[in-house]
Amino acid sequence: MQPTITAFESSPDRGKGLARDMRLRWALEEIGQPYEVRLLSFPELKRPEHRARNPFGQIPTLEQDGQTLFESGAILLHLAEQHGRLLPSEPAARIQAISWMFAALNTVEPPVFERSLASILERNEAWYPQRIAILDQRMRQRLQELSHHLGDADWLAGDFSAADVLMVTVLMRAESSGMLDEFPNLVAYLARARARPAFQRAFDAQREVFRQSQSQSR
Amino acid sequence: MQPTITAFESSPDRGKGLARDMRLRWALEEIGQPYEVRLLSFPELKRPEHRARNPFGQIPTLEQDGQTLFESGAILLHLAEQHGRLLPSEPAARIQAISWMFAALNTVEPPVFERSLASILERNEAWYPQRIAILDQRMRQRLQELSHHLGDADWLAGDFSAADVLMVTVLMRAESSGMLDEFPNLVAYLARARARPAFQRAFDAQREVFRQSQSQSR
Repeated sequence: MQPTITAFESSPDRGKGLARDMRLRWALEEIGQPYEVRLLSFPELKRPEHRARNPFGQIPTLEQDGQTLFESGAILLHLAEQHGRLLPSEPAARIQAISWMFAALNTVEPPVFERSLASILERNEAWYPQRIAILDQRMRQRLQELSHHLGDADWLAGDFSAADVLMVTVLMRAESSGMLDEFPNLVAYLARARARPAFQRAFDAQREVFRQSQSQSR
Repeated sequence: MQPTITAFESSPDRGKGLARDMRLRWALEEIGQPYEVRLLSFPELKRPEHRARNPFGQIPTLEQDGQTLFESGAILLHLAEQHGRLLPSEPAARIQAISWMFAALNTVEPPVFERSLASILERNEAWYPQRIAILDQRMRQRLQELSHHLGDADWLAGDFSAADVLMVTVLMRAESSGMLDEFPNLVAYLARARARPAFQRAFDAQREVFRQSQSQSR
């Protein structure tokens, strides 16, 4: 049975690949595993039927063989283990790559996400200039540390891995700040990721969903 | 060889168990694995010697058998796998518990952490009343969803697991807001966790570090 993922029927990012279904699509494309997509409207996300998939009413989820998983990090770990792909098989290298999965989600994503959220929700508030300066500083520190670790390596932890799927999609959310340009090796890292055929197929698939949602609402 | 963890020489929470070494201490106590502690000052966290342990200059890390791990979530996963404890062995139950580990760190912790940070750093800003109302709303939504999922179960995913170690320590950071009192089952969940002897040993150990730091600085 093909796995089924959930995604926004009409993504608030307008098809820029920032919604977290992008992570699953990309990983599934890297693995070569075909998948189905269940599209959900915002009201549907909060209904009991979807809360049974994810108690927090979020996308993405993955349904396969009668089991439903949530949290993109856990789903990537599951896919990597199930297919023996996207993580090193040697135990010490594997747990290092898993450390980078958690670092993407728990150390780099929060300041990137907060800055992105504030730039949308607080832009017209009187406090915005002061707030964004604080948020810029927090995000810049993490990007500096990430850039320093990456150096001139291609990927975060040896070969391309699930950690890169997560970190690249986190960095995509930082792009609109313009701050990534301060770190040429991170810009090159993103370009290297985007050049992967699996990324392109995943990106095109999520963009097509958004395009369809727009043509239907006209 | 006993593993060595890193922790703050003098924790900014004044020994309340909110620093992330608490997660490792608690898990190691649950497993019954003795450990060493390397205490670090704030300047030491940012030096190359510690950046080699964690590129982001944070605690905790775990050194064992020549390998160094970072990110509390990854370290808990590693300890669980190494000792065959703190996660179900049955694959479907195991990945569900891992989903809850990621949910603690990537869905519940960010709004809890942001609210906690703002209540310290932005308390005297003119915008604070408006900001805290937004942050309260975000945190309350996640606590409601968590409370609804937990219901009258003892633990998040079957037996006590690494997911509970993470979620309980996240909720401890929410306590000072007073908002937890709106969710009696979450208050009971915290009390149940704190009653575990392993929690108590871990809590006492980190509090003793803070006490020592205070008596030395007099």
